[in-house]
Amino acid sequence: MKKIQGGVTVAKGFKAAGLHSGIKKVKPDMALIATTTPAKVAGQFTTNLVQAAPLKVCQEHLKVSDQFSAIIINSGNANACTGQQGLQDAKKMASIVAQNLNCKTEEVLVASTGVIGVNLPMDKIASGIEKIVPKLSGDGGKDAAEAIMTTDTFSKEYAVKFELDGKEVRLGGIAKGSGMIHPNMATMLAFITTDAAISTNLLRQALSSAVAKSFNMITVDGDTSTNDTVLLLANGEANNKEITEENSDFAKFSEALLQVTTELAKAIAKDGEGATKFVEVQVVGASTDEVASKVALSIAGSNLVKTALFGEDANWGRIICAAGYSGADFDPDKVKIYLGDLQVGDYGRGIDFSEEQAKEILSNSEIILKVDLQSGSSQATAWTCDLTFDYIKINASYRT
Amino acid sequence: MKKIQGGVTVAKGFKAAGLHSGIKKVKPDMALIATTTPAKVAGQFTTNLVQAAPLKVCQEHLKVSDQFSAIIINSGNANACTGQQGLQDAKKMASIVAQNLNCKTEEVLVASTGVIGVNLPMDKIASGIEKIVPKLSGDGGKDAAEAIMTTDTFSKEYAVKFELDGKEVRLGGIAKGSGMIHPNMATMLAFITTDAAISTNLLRQALSSAVAKSFNMITVDGDTSTNDTVLLLANGEANNKEITEENSDFAKFSEALLQVTTELAKAIAKDGEGATKFVEVQVVGASTDEVASKVALSIAGSNLVKTALFGEDANWGRIICAAGYSGADFDPDKVKIYLGDLQVGDYGRGIDFSEEQAKEILSNSEIILKVDLQSGSSQATAWTCDLTFDYIKINASYRT
Repeated sequence: MKKIQGGVTVAKGFKAAGLHSGIKKVKPDMALIATTTPAKVAGQFTTNLVQAAPLKVCQEHLKVSDQFSAIIINSGNANACTGQQGLQDAKKMASIVAQNLNCKTEEVLVASTGVIGVNLPMDKIASGIEKIVPKLSGDGGKDAAEAIMTTDTFSKEYAVKFELDGKEVRLGGIAKGSGMIHPNMATMLAFITTDAAISTNLLRQALSSAVAKSFNMITVDGDTSTNDTVLLLANGEANNKEITEENSDFAKFSEALLQVTTELAKAIAKDGEGATKFVEVQVVGASTDEVASKVALSIAGSNLVKTALFGEDANWGRIICAAGYSGADFDPDKVKIYLGDLQVGDYGRGIDFSEEQAKEILSNSEIILKVDLQSGSSQATAWTCDLTFDYIKINASYRT
Repeated sequence: MKKIQGGVTVAKGFKAAGLHSGIKKVKPDMALIATTTPAKVAGQFTTNLVQAAPLKVCQEHLKVSDQFSAIIINSGNANACTGQQGLQDAKKMASIVAQNLNCKTEEVLVASTGVIGVNLPMDKIASGIEKIVPKLSGDGGKDAAEAIMTTDTFSKEYAVKFELDGKEVRLGGIAKGSGMIHPNMATMLAFITTDAAISTNLLRQALSSAVAKSFNMITVDGDTSTNDTVLLLANGEANNKEITEENSDFAKFSEALLQVTTELAKAIAKDGEGATKFVEVQVVGASTDEVASKVALSIAGSNLVKTALFGEDANWGRIICAAGYSGADFDPDKVKIYLGDLQVGDYGRGIDFSEEQAKEILSNSEIILKVDLQSGSSQATAWTCDLTFDYIKINASYRT
């Protein structure tokens, strides 16, 4: 498997575009991803009981159709908590795209991100769609990645190529964060395309498993959004023998997918609102995978841990405290804790360590916290960022 | 029932004191509460799997003894994650107090709060205890309330008097916050004393029920501490007929206890680290009490809601979003949302409201958020504060 440049347009047959339709003042706010050969789709959506209108429309379309031609996305407005009008608007977005691409409305998927509770400016959306369709191109992936950003400070793309059945297969995606980030379905939005030929069932199985280990293992602020969506399109243009069982090709495909989702997820954590540091929490020696995940996410989600990291303070007590309230079962008296390579806690107790060395490790922009529960061989990794003055600044006046 | 001045020394037979023993640089860091007539005790402790040494000692003493003479408390050091040495130190604190008060070691309870993972300076603690015992007085409640503070900006006392069986009964307490505050057992530390005569079983039942509606309904930062402790002492000196069944006296006693625990809990939320605003989240119209509590706590715990309140931004979308990921079941399309008296959301949708009026409401130092789920008659109230630059400042370098 090889990392390659690009995102949603690396796979054969996929085009994309991005532009400014007028929802935001200046920045790009509309993206379109399309495939010439209709694609199979797997989708994962927020577990929030409050689901935005586009998510409802996507889930409806996934029920009635088994092939898809495009995803239309807007940023700047989440089309969430917008009632019947919101649903009509999301459907209208799909139908205008369908008219322009000569496909059925239910073959178009819709996603939105931005402020909650405000109806979409449908005149701007409609004229935006008319303008974006002719812009679709094999080079438009980067524009699409930029057009889905909200408070993100950089656009997020990642892609790989690998071989299946002697054929080159490509898989790449784009994503955006960067507040309201917390499992389940922490991503806000991610769109992944591939030219692999694979059955819908296995496509969905691969996505569900990849999301559990990537997007669902990041947290920025503990707030699970109303709009989290991951869509994976596979159009089969690589011409590999269709994957229809859990064979070695499926394993390869799943590995490639996990690599792309993990890198996109890490980019989201890295670009968490106000973040100055990227934090990887490794939990090893757990009795089960579930214990490992719970402990890793609880540490990654702790305001006090994240604030101490911002302050470069080796306050490891907050790490074991967060592990303790994770709800997972382990023996606190066995726990070892490391900041990078430096051990700071042993058998649940503080040990003497060099404050100077700790300070040096914590002054880096990427920090690894490692917790060894010493009670088994399961492990999990979660990603987050520090909690800073700028997080407060950004979120104290998001609407205005 | 009547509110009266004071805290742990309003009830007959209780004395207290506070002083600086040297754990902290300058501020008072040791408190002692004692009763001449041995008291029955009810206790509630953190649900964190990682429990500090004093909590283990308290739970041990509660098992082997049914009468108690004193509580010794230190601030500045949590005696958590301190291994066998920590356990020995906590027991030693109890035994030195016992020697000085001529009671058994197991009749003394111990509590600590402060930094995690550092062993107690036992020489300072020992000489502090020798000095604090002679200072015990009926006027020492305020000193005790001050000596248990860490990052609290004001001391917390509340007391009431009421009648049981024709006798005047007094009940009062002290508490401290103000970070690592989240249910279960959100209090960090609270100590409540009463001269009521009541059986141990009913005392524990009353405390458990009061804690569920007060201390467990506040959140500052979502971090559940390793040291949360509530202790309630009843020495019977009011000479009322001992409460041994769930009669009207028990109801009166429970009501008085709930009032004291609620006021102390609210004071903790009000004094949350860096707080500029006190926030009450009222959830009404819920199908069950559990739904109401979950939704109220989820909203009160949302970083994004709390940051918007700091910024005085009427971002009600974050309120319904936090309700949605609470894990409670309700119909999002029925939800009404109010900032103070101003309705901002109706049937899950945004409605037109005066931004000016919203700004005025949000500029107050006390804010009520009300959510009506319109699906039943259960309700719950949670308390929190806003999330501010100063929270980050305080916690970025807590140890140093």
